[in-house]
Amino acid sequence: MEIEIGRAKRARQVYGFDDVAIVPNRRTRDPEVVSTAWRIDAFHFDTPFIAAPMDSVVSPQTAIAIGQLGGLGVLNLEGLWTRYENPESVLEEIRELPADAATVRMREIYSQPINPELITARLAQIREAEVPVAGALSPHRTQELYETVVNAGVDLFVIRGNTVSAEHVSNDTKPPLNLKKFIYELDVPVIVGGAATYTSALHLMRTGAAGVLVGFGGGASSTTRATLGIHAPMATAIADVAGARRDYMDESDGRYVHVIADGGLGSSGDIVKAIACGADAVMLGTVLARAEEAPGGGWHWGQEAYHDDLPRGNRVHVGTVAPLAELLDGPANVADGSANLHGALRRSMATTGYSDLKEFQRVNLVVRPRSSP
Amino acid sequence: MEIEIGRAKRARQVYGFDDVAIVPNRRTRDPEVVSTAWRIDAFHFDTPFIAAPMDSVVSPQTAIAIGQLGGLGVLNLEGLWTRYENPESVLEEIRELPADAATVRMREIYSQPINPELITARLAQIREAEVPVAGALSPHRTQELYETVVNAGVDLFVIRGNTVSAEHVSNDTKPPLNLKKFIYELDVPVIVGGAATYTSALHLMRTGAAGVLVGFGGGASSTTRATLGIHAPMATAIADVAGARRDYMDESDGRYVHVIADGGLGSSGDIVKAIACGADAVMLGTVLARAEEAPGGGWHWGQEAYHDDLPRGNRVHVGTVAPLAELLDGPANVADGSANLHGALRRSMATTGYSDLKEFQRVNLVVRPRSSP
Amino acid sequence: MEIEIGRAKRARQVYGFDDVAIVPNRRTRDPEVVSTAWRIDAFHFDTPFIAAPMDSVVSPQTAIAIGQLGGLGVLNLEGLWTRYENPESVLEEIRELPADAATVRMREIYSQPINPELITARLAQIREAEVPVAGALSPHRTQELYETVVNAGVDLFVIRGNTVSAEHVSNDTKPPLNLKKFIYELDVPVIVGGAATYTSALHLMRTGAAGVLVGFGGGASSTTRATLGIHAPMATAIADVAGARRDYMDESDGRYVHVIADGGLGSSGDIVKAIACGADAVMLGTVLARAEEAPGGGWHWGQEAYHDDLPRGNRVHVGTVAPLAELLDGPANVADGSANLHGALRRSMATTGYSDLKEFQRVNLVVRPRSSP
Amino acid sequence: MEIEIGRAKRARQVYGFDDVAIVPNRRTRDPEVVSTAWRIDAFHFDTPFIAAPMDSVVSPQTAIAIGQLGGLGVLNLEGLWTRYENPESVLEEIRELPADAATVRMREIYSQPINPELITARLAQIREAEVPVAGALSPHRTQELYETVVNAGVDLFVIRGNTVSAEHVSNDTKPPLNLKKFIYELDVPVIVGGAATYTSALHLMRTGAAGVLVGFGGGASSTTRATLGIHAPMATAIADVAGARRDYMDESDGRYVHVIADGGLGSSGDIVKAIACGADAVMLGTVLARAEEAPGGGWHWGQEAYHDDLPRGNRVHVGTVAPLAELLDGPANVADGSANLHGALRRSMATTGYSDLKEFQRVNLVVRPRSSP
Repeated sequence: MEIEIGRAKRARQVYGFDDVAIVPNRRTRDPEVVSTAWRIDAFHFDTPFIAAPMDSVVSPQTAIAIGQLGGLGVLNLEGLWTRYENPESVLEEIRELPADAATVRMREIYSQPINPELITARLAQIREAEVPVAGALSPHRTQELYETVVNAGVDLFVIRGNTVSAEHVSNDTKPPLNLKKFIYELDVPVIVGGAATYTSALHLMRTGAAGVLVGFGGGASSTTRATLGIHAPMATAIADVAGARRDYMDESDGRYVHVIADGGLGSSGDIVKAIACGADAVMLGTVLARAEEAPGGGWHWGQEAYHDDLPRGNRVHVGTVAPLAELLDGPANVADGSANLHGALRRSMATTGYSDLKEFQRVNLVVRPRSSP
Repeated sequence: MEIEIGRAKRARQVYGFDDVAIVPNRRTRDPEVVSTAWRIDAFHFDTPFIAAPMDSVVSPQTAIAIGQLGGLGVLNLEGLWTRYENPESVLEEIRELPADAATVRMREIYSQPINPELITARLAQIREAEVPVAGALSPHRTQELYETVVNAGVDLFVIRGNTVSAEHVSNDTKPPLNLKKFIYELDVPVIVGGAATYTSALHLMRTGAAGVLVGFGGGASSTTRATLGIHAPMATAIADVAGARRDYMDESDGRYVHVIADGGLGSSGDIVKAIACGADAVMLGTVLARAEEAPGGGWHWGQEAYHDDLPRGNRVHVGTVAPLAELLDGPANVADGSANLHGALRRSMATTGYSDLKEFQRVNLVVRPRSSP
Repeated sequence: MEIEIGRAKRARQVYGFDDVAIVPNRRTRDPEVVSTAWRIDAFHFDTPFIAAPMDSVVSPQTAIAIGQLGGLGVLNLEGLWTRYENPESVLEEIRELPADAATVRMREIYSQPINPELITARLAQIREAEVPVAGALSPHRTQELYETVVNAGVDLFVIRGNTVSAEHVSNDTKPPLNLKKFIYELDVPVIVGGAATYTSALHLMRTGAAGVLVGFGGGASSTTRATLGIHAPMATAIADVAGARRDYMDESDGRYVHVIADGGLGSSGDIVKAIACGADAVMLGTVLARAEEAPGGGWHWGQEAYHDDLPRGNRVHVGTVAPLAELLDGPANVADGSANLHGALRRSMATTGYSDLKEFQRVNLVVRPRSSP
Repeated sequence: MEIEIGRAKRARQVYGFDDVAIVPNRRTRDPEVVSTAWRIDAFHFDTPFIAAPMDSVVSPQTAIAIGQLGGLGVLNLEGLWTRYENPESVLEEIRELPADAATVRMREIYSQPINPELITARLAQIREAEVPVAGALSPHRTQELYETVVNAGVDLFVIRGNTVSAEHVSNDTKPPLNLKKFIYELDVPVIVGGAATYTSALHLMRTGAAGVLVGFGGGASSTTRATLGIHAPMATAIADVAGARRDYMDESDGRYVHVIADGGLGSSGDIVKAIACGADAVMLGTVLARAEEAPGGGWHWGQEAYHDDLPRGNRVHVGTVAPLAELLDGPANVADGSANLHGALRRSMATTGYSDLKEFQRVNLVVRPRSSP
């Protein structure tokens, strides 16, 4: 829907998770006869939950635990675990920083150089637990570090930035990462993003990526809207990228690129809506940072929080809700959408009569004018 | 109105009670010449107020009191009165639970088995007072308990769940409740729901139900929006189900199925709007939990609050406003829509010039962009 | 704009003062060359400000003061001044009532019978000051008291209720007030309302009224939205009744019925918007209750606050801003739209290039999606 | 988009900064290869940041500092620096005024006459620092003071009021300022405004102005919405005036009049959106009042705050964030859009793939129904 903002400018109406909801249909189903499984490349997962490569969410230990619970944990390969031999004391320091000192001190903490040997060691630790191994780099460090990562052995390679485009313009003496060539030559399936629009996602799909992350810093810890004026509400972003998936499948004679919602997923209700809008899986930050085992210890932050000259996020307190197993599989002892994510997703699908995730992407959606019973 | 959320997803614009209001017309009327009566099957009621089968609202005593005041009280047959000989002490314990312990302890309290003899005894108590007798079961316990209920004697049989569909898919060894067969064989009129859409309501009407409950956990004590991502704003839900009533009347050669709004009715203004949207009667939770006689003693909760693994509601404090008689028939000593429900409904009808509930369903409605004088 | 709420119900999109604003044009003007004068029947006023017949706003003294400042004060002839010889002590008691006792005690205070001799005396007091004399009755007491009022001598006769319709249905033994006959036989110009829709206003115009009050309990002290579900946002209501004025002028060969916005006018900005929507004058409650001389002494209430069985308003604290003269004509020492109403209106007209009120009704209006700079 | 408010009134849907956001595209860019330069007349600036002529923002010292940092500081020539020899003590007094005394005392402070010699001295001080010299007068004092200003020497002459129109109607004995004649005869480029609509801006462009200020008292310190009912949301206002720029360029055979957003710019995100809507540069109040060097010392006010009889703004506390250099060029130690304005603008342009400001005016815009992730 095109809107005239003024004589010289038009805009498009877009929607976030809070604007939409799903509605029951004429059929219902027992939660027990519902499947939440999905697969990407050779890897099968019982649940579509991917832990985001953020230091407050994924340690090697939580990556293992999430893998054992049927999901996927992605380790941030530019974070504390690859900069520090013993990151526990650093994590503790971050938790205890006063609010007005957090940005500056975290900037210092993250200026410690990345140790390639730690990349190798951390990934090995996950592999030993016999769960799928996934690590993430930012686009501008991928060329520098990818060989270390590949040699260490990953099952899924994640390239994650605020916006990753297939056409990056730079005046550095070394040319920017050629994603298409990079992915083609790599033996490992690549998940890449964020992309927030149909066009940018379609271009990423054409690079050969196995999955595309949808989002643009929409999480609880991000302030890109105030700092950059950029905002990509998730319901529209996911539905647009799902449209790119469909069109790319047509132009590629059937290659299915997975759409992974990444950002702004604050509750089980948001997870449900993400899939209803077309996501195949969800990358979770805030909701998993609330696990007892989460390395953030009740605090949560992304890389934006310690950017060199333009931080675009904060270290935020998200609290601790339950052990990871309970948070994912229940039973929930709270009723706010923060626990039993798996049970909530299954029940939503059951209540609306769908039996698997792909079907559930067709569930009916409504928009409401504002918060009302 | 269809809205494009993004390339691969469309949604429908829907409305809740807060989004709409009724407007006066050119004619006015004295409140004294207005009738709020309705009938379902052989039963006539002076007011369209039905007390919801929730333990914080309906005890045998309040069911009797509401019946004597011209309404209908529906007893929850899976609640404290059929699990405990003396539920008063249990009610007191629930009232005094600290917030962080409520979910877990209520789950234990409600794990006490249902005693069929108590079903018989409680319904007999209501019958002795010579008011209409109504009891409610959830869909998945209906087959197990309905004979006890029918033998105990009910005038109206209520089957109430979050979503009740005419086509439930299950992999249990015993097949799911066949609503159509069940209702056909039962001698008692059945009210069934919730249904939140045209299609699901139409299917329920075709089972032979005398009334359909409209709603999906929209009440003050529900958190399905955060947990399941499901939301069925009531103004649209009622107007859709009223459309199903009209179409079903056509296809059935004139059978009129009653539409009963159930959920999200927090004030007399909401009751007025529910009928304006097409409801024949309203099932009330929160507003009646504020009666001095209410068993919740100022607290209110639904079955979602003590669900085994995925609670989707809370025990909430609603306070106490007035004795039941004053709350229903006035005089009101407060001006917030919490008292003299009957007087408020009559005055709304009078002010807009309508003389009975069926006519009043045609009153003009407005939508306002946001809260403003 | 017709909106589908659901299958069986449509609604109209409406707007309140908060939803709209006026915008400058290409021409500007000095505030000094702007006129805010208007006339109704034989009476000329320098400003379009009419003080509402509410006990917290208009005493005989403030009616005189407002008249001397170029406006009109309408005395409530069913209020404290016509029930009590010395209402000052009663006013003081109301001011000091604790919140939870206010409704009940005010109901008692206002159950004191009206003394016709006090009607005569109060109106005489205003007349002696040689300002226009105006008094208000509610529709259902008009027949009983109008002769007293007419004999006492009023220049403008106001009949004011929540909704006044030209077709009232009643089953009282005595028939309802026949407005058309009443107005025809009366020698005094009549202002009547509230009317909130095109049709109801058109019918009132056809009774021969000189002015129509637009509104339905939209003021700060009203809670009709919560209690009755009724809401008539003012921007739309005024624009609709202005449409009735235009159509009635056509069908009556040129009779111009004045449109007076009544309700929800909380600031000078709202007054400006009311006239921009088509009002010829504004009836003010809250804003004048903030005058130092206001009998409410910083408190404000309408008749809804002490209704017998269904109060639909509260006694609210509005505070005291400035002496009446400063409040109307400035200088303002606050910048929140509560003072220098006359100056603000003049400046708005000047800034948008209009020279009189009638022209200013054509000023451009905008709607904004939500509060934003 | 025309909206029917009611039968006799239509309105236009408009948008503010909070309603819109920009979205990434398929291309990205390094922030280093982005230019934020612009030029007006013979003057080149590295950044589009213009400090507003407000006493809490621009002193001769901060005008110099901003000029040295690549922006432009405009001195208020009717403010404290031209009324007082030593305004520092007056600034200190204003900072320390209690809230309820501020309006009255500031009115007294600003009643001190303007000293033309101080105009000359203050402008000379800026000129000595070899940065562009700009001073502002209000329209109604321009005739009286402009010769002093021109003789003192300014590079850019700013005429700034709430609304400046090319057709002002006055009944003063002396005729109003003839803008066209004035600008034609003046040797110095003139920036004039505020204009909030297409038509008023087009008329100002036809006077020969080099730049037009877009806005109408939309800043943090303004209350024109409550007092005057006037509101010109900035996204629409800028896009409309950008439309006037395009149409005027056509009718004038290519004269490009600069569009400068003035008001309601509270963060770097708002600056980004202003340019996205079509602005060539932005005039900043609140965001620069937060500099350590700002003369307001953490407080901010405009001329509306001390108006003679109708103040339409307040002295507001905005706090202190960082030294001016850090606030403009970073590094930012906060993530709320209040620091590193230049870096944020560059990064927004880079993230969406644009290389200069003029191109960036074409970036895609979205509207979101309400605040949501």
